[in-house]
Amino acid sequence: MNAPETPPVSDLPALALREVPADFLAALAARFGDQMSTGESVRAQHGRDESAYVHIPPPAAVVFAESTQDVADTLRLCNAYGVPVIAYGVGSSIEGQLLAVQGGISLDVSRMNRVLHVNAEDLTVTVQPGVTRKQLNEAIKDTGLFFPIDPGADASIGGMSATRASGTNAVRYGTMRENVLALEVVLANGEVMHTGTRAKKSSAGYDLTRLLVGSEGTLGVMTEVTVRLHPLPEAVSAAICQFPTIRDAVQTVITTIQMGVPIARVEFIEAHTVELINAYAKTTLRPEHMLLMEFHGSPAGVKEQAETVQAIASEHHGNDFEWADTPEGRTQLWSARHNTLFAGLASRPGAKAVTTDACVPISRLADCLLESVADAEAHNQPYFLVGHVGDGNFHFGYLIDPDSAEERERAEALNHRLVARAIAMDGTCTGEHGIGLHKMGFLVNEAGLPAVDAMRAIKRALDPNGILNPGKVFAAD
Amino acid sequence: MNAPETPPVSDLPALALREVPADFLAALAARFGDQMSTGESVRAQHGRDESAYVHIPPPAAVVFAESTQDVADTLRLCNAYGVPVIAYGVGSSIEGQLLAVQGGISLDVSRMNRVLHVNAEDLTVTVQPGVTRKQLNEAIKDTGLFFPIDPGADASIGGMSATRASGTNAVRYGTMRENVLALEVVLANGEVMHTGTRAKKSSAGYDLTRLLVGSEGTLGVMTEVTVRLHPLPEAVSAAICQFPTIRDAVQTVITTIQMGVPIARVEFIEAHTVELINAYAKTTLRPEHMLLMEFHGSPAGVKEQAETVQAIASEHHGNDFEWADTPEGRTQLWSARHNTLFAGLASRPGAKAVTTDACVPISRLADCLLESVADAEAHNQPYFLVGHVGDGNFHFGYLIDPDSAEERERAEALNHRLVARAIAMDGTCTGEHGIGLHKMGFLVNEAGLPAVDAMRAIKRALDPNGILNPGKVFAAD
Repeated sequence: MNAPETPPVSDLPALALREVPADFLAALAARFGDQMSTGESVRAQHGRDESAYVHIPPPAAVVFAESTQDVADTLRLCNAYGVPVIAYGVGSSIEGQLLAVQGGISLDVSRMNRVLHVNAEDLTVTVQPGVTRKQLNEAIKDTGLFFPIDPGADASIGGMSATRASGTNAVRYGTMRENVLALEVVLANGEVMHTGTRAKKSSAGYDLTRLLVGSEGTLGVMTEVTVRLHPLPEAVSAAICQFPTIRDAVQTVITTIQMGVPIARVEFIEAHTVELINAYAKTTLRPEHMLLMEFHGSPAGVKEQAETVQAIASEHHGNDFEWADTPEGRTQLWSARHNTLFAGLASRPGAKAVTTDACVPISRLADCLLESVADAEAHNQPYFLVGHVGDGNFHFGYLIDPDSAEERERAEALNHRLVARAIAMDGTCTGEHGIGLHKMGFLVNEAGLPAVDAMRAIKRALDPNGILNPGKVFAAD
Repeated sequence: MNAPETPPVSDLPALALREVPADFLAALAARFGDQMSTGESVRAQHGRDESAYVHIPPPAAVVFAESTQDVADTLRLCNAYGVPVIAYGVGSSIEGQLLAVQGGISLDVSRMNRVLHVNAEDLTVTVQPGVTRKQLNEAIKDTGLFFPIDPGADASIGGMSATRASGTNAVRYGTMRENVLALEVVLANGEVMHTGTRAKKSSAGYDLTRLLVGSEGTLGVMTEVTVRLHPLPEAVSAAICQFPTIRDAVQTVITTIQMGVPIARVEFIEAHTVELINAYAKTTLRPEHMLLMEFHGSPAGVKEQAETVQAIASEHHGNDFEWADTPEGRTQLWSARHNTLFAGLASRPGAKAVTTDACVPISRLADCLLESVADAEAHNQPYFLVGHVGDGNFHFGYLIDPDSAEERERAEALNHRLVARAIAMDGTCTGEHGIGLHKMGFLVNEAGLPAVDAMRAIKRALDPNGILNPGKVFAAD
């Protein structure tokens, strides 16, 4: 693997602010009245996300869409005036996806938060894009079904679709790629397109559903999302297992996956990160490298899986599993895990996290992780480290002072080397966070120019005026 | 649901033969020598498939590619001269995908049949497109892994990717959509593009892999395909269960799926079709409606699954399972099932099959199937009927005399009504066969014009001269 051809964005992205004409804003105000705001705090709130970027000007206005028609009318106006538009769910993206680097407006779909059709018999549900994953699970809790994708934050289903999100359950239940069945999407010209059906599989033409999933708002704005649901497992058990070394923990996972054990969740938490979590979440987890696991199935099946994995863990010096058998105990564990980002940030007041998201073929996971740990240690970089290790995906959060150019550069250099390492191992720079601004250079390194050129050609074909979240994923030319 | 807007192709597709210039053929011959043929029988062999179309002129020449470079050079020449090019694997597609309705040449990739990289530890393998599914499974038989997708015919992996194929194992292991990880693709201009990586998941830009999977040779020619493998189950058992009515059999499946039983295969065979199979395959199956099932897992898991499904079946008047416990017995059963098309064709000498491929949400499966059976019976249409019912997918094969306009129209009218029924039930016109020529009208009905226009825009962006399998999936404008 050669060094990346294009440097990653290391500080402020290049701003290329487009004009937002006064008569456009007037037309928007005339159409939307108090569904539109140009107030400073509303704009500021929509001009940020969980990324490490700072000092980006906020959007010129925010429209609060309440219907597909609202979205269509907004896009029609933006298209006519050539004004950028950035769809906004709950603001939890972490690679700069929501930042108005070319100006324009934010299109907030959080009021489009109705669960439209629960088809429990078919294991499908259709929701508006502003429905969050927790809201969805609450709405279907009496059906015996659940929606498994859990990217930490209580993200919106629209945002999760747009970034092809996953989380801790993906090792068994797949990512948004596997779980989105159909979409209603408003295209750049305001036209409403439907993709996919509620059938479980289809060979009907180009897979527009999966083209839109992961397109980060650059090809259309989703207004309805139909996702697959899964039967709640008859039995669930969660276990913790500590290991003396990172390699032991990771090897346990590698063997588990290679043997085809249908483990539902298997998360790695590095020892020091466990301490950060304890401090933040008031938990009392032993500060050692650990795997946090969950088994789903029939009572006998769960027992069998757990015994298999315990045997593998013991071969790799893991201790006896500690069990969390009550739903409350499990919720506490997983919520502690999901708060890692905030635990990390809290450990260094004022810090931002430069997050990494590499994902590699499982056989290379231990090497990729350990080399990256050694690199961070060698450079005295404070970090937290967790991983959806069953998928070969892990996250460093390099904790930096966002106003220190030196710290920013150090973290970006570590990230840069980590991504090069992952790509050299046939992996990807992003398992689940998306490209946004932060990984645009990496995308070229990973996919190569012909693929990025194909993406550009598709973008131009569907959004000829370049109004949909421009300046993200790849440069326009 | 309104009546379809566009009539399906009911007989000869509209031919719009483009010129194949003599100097193009000369340039091709100069480059490829005896890797190219204009012989009549070779051209005729490449101008047909398993569809019911007849009397389509064959391609003007056939190139036998042996490398990515061969494919790139062929496409570069075709692009320069504006000559259509149709990629060809083993010729087993059934919706007219391979027919040269706009003239041009056939690009046979069957000599690109090397298994390139087996990464058993990562459960992946990279193959050339001409490798067939049986060849692949033979090549990896010592790894403890298998490739589950089995579309009946011993199709090529390239062809299966291009039509987003599936088969009997899809209910548990997914389709080509879920199992293709990465591709090497030659674009219309001869450029070589790589999509995806060997990582299990990724959020790196547009999902070009899944855009290409199912694009039926209209966006590029695949030259390498990386697919997921799965651990061979520790235990496998296959069972047959007979039912007094179709509804009983289908309801058994619906309940099984809704309960989340991880059944590996569950195929429906209609009673009369069992007789056709017995006659063709010399089997002695009882001529009743049946489910043919397979359970994969640990010995205890398999037993548990089978007991659950037996209990469900008994509630729906199914008899006690008959077991096929030996690998030989199972192979015989599945090979009988896979030969249904040929059993059907053999039952009426000279016949062609107009096949249907609807797939509906599981709750609608019984209604869709039974209404379609009643329609066929009411019109005295000879047929066979099988289904990948766990996915909501089923196939009628309407057996017709291909030279009888009356029979052709009757079969097409039945198919037309069946598809309208499936679409009205939130289903799709094709679960696994693809659009080809035969379902182009249906695609418009199912997806709607904005989606088909988006497909057209993507096609124009990636293949501006329209050389890649033109006249398939959708009309160019």
